[in-house]
Amino acid sequence: MLVVHHLGVSQSERIVWLCEELGIDYTLKVYDRDSVTRLAPADYKALHPMGMAPVIHDGDVVLGESGAIIDYINQKYGENRLALKPDDPHFADYLYWFHFANASLMAHELAGMIATMLGAGADNPAMALLADRRDRGFAQVEAHLGHNTWFAGPAFTAADIIMVFPLTTMRAFVPRDLGPYPNIRAYLKRVGERPAYRRAMQKGDPTLPPMLD
Amino acid sequence: MLVVHHLGVSQSERIVWLCEELGIDYTLKVYDRDSVTRLAPADYKALHPMGMAPVIHDGDVVLGESGAIIDYINQKYGENRLALKPDDPHFADYLYWFHFANASLMAHELAGMIATMLGAGADNPAMALLADRRDRGFAQVEAHLGHNTWFAGPAFTAADIIMVFPLTTMRAFVPRDLGPYPNIRAYLKRVGERPAYRRAMQKGDPTLPPMLD
Repeated sequence: MLVVHHLGVSQSERIVWLCEELGIDYTLKVYDRDSVTRLAPADYKALHPMGMAPVIHDGDVVLGESGAIIDYINQKYGENRLALKPDDPHFADYLYWFHFANASLMAHELAGMIATMLGAGADNPAMALLADRRDRGFAQVEAHLGHNTWFAGPAFTAADIIMVFPLTTMRAFVPRDLGPYPNIRAYLKRVGERPAYRRAMQKGDPTLPPMLD
Repeated sequence: MLVVHHLGVSQSERIVWLCEELGIDYTLKVYDRDSVTRLAPADYKALHPMGMAPVIHDGDVVLGESGAIIDYINQKYGENRLALKPDDPHFADYLYWFHFANASLMAHELAGMIATMLGAGADNPAMALLADRRDRGFAQVEAHLGHNTWFAGPAFTAADIIMVFPLTTMRAFVPRDLGPYPNIRAYLKRVGERPAYRRAMQKGDPTLPPMLD
């Protein structure tokens, strides 16, 4: 039996959403962050050597990493129907955004969060380099969503499931005003209208405010 | 025709290596870093909106992101033979390390590099949190390689191709002494004995010193 360990206000919202989109059976265990430190509680950290969300159990398998878990569940329990095939004209786009989400977009946001915690000023050369990469990332997303309904084109895929977190909940940790990004806002409105997304957020994070529009 | 744009001393060494392991036809274009700034030259940055290595061309397709490019080439030109199937007992391991490489290990090393450039001291709470995550990452790799020949078990896979860079060339940017990691050193010796790895490094980075042992 598949068990999804969801840490509130974290990347594991993606896994709850994935299970709801696929309509598969799973057990959801929700963990709250420490009310003072906002870090994961000790019982969540003990689930996996990295001590970070998300984590799933599937029989003897204990698996971390958003991208790995999405690929695992989609292939094992979803007939891989939220991925595109190599002969699909949007295959390269699918793979690009699926990997870009954590390996580039979130990696640079994490570095920005650390740098901000360190009190670095915007005039520091390292901060300038980082700000440039972060802005390029969001500009690329905005441009792409100007002519695509979903990240991999006309079909909703796992690329959407992994890309939404850095555009929404992640902004509670690394603020970014979406005012200058009308295409991203319109896209998030489409996401917020998906019944599976609503069910997932209701089950996993019922106290989060509903999707902005 | 597949064109691999390789920036010297960068993540794109993975793509050259992948093509050599698969034994496929490709055109290799090598770009040198700026001799003063050590950044990518303007003609490399112009290849892709993110301006970062790696980048490939395949007909009309322009693709970035290590993970995306490896999946693309492996599926389009390699019959996906460097990936594991869902019924393989090492399937979860394969996916985990394939995603962990950039989404966790390199993301935390990048944040460490930025923090070091900012002159943060080890006693800073943000640096302490980051150092803990970085050490956990390497400890997990070391433990795993103590009882696995390759990252996904007995078979060499694309998980190895993506995991080697942060253990080798990345250390030119974010130093880490491998003295306390005998399993990682033994693993890298196995990698260095692979003819395809040697051919790739000879073609892409002939001035880099040979694999440590």
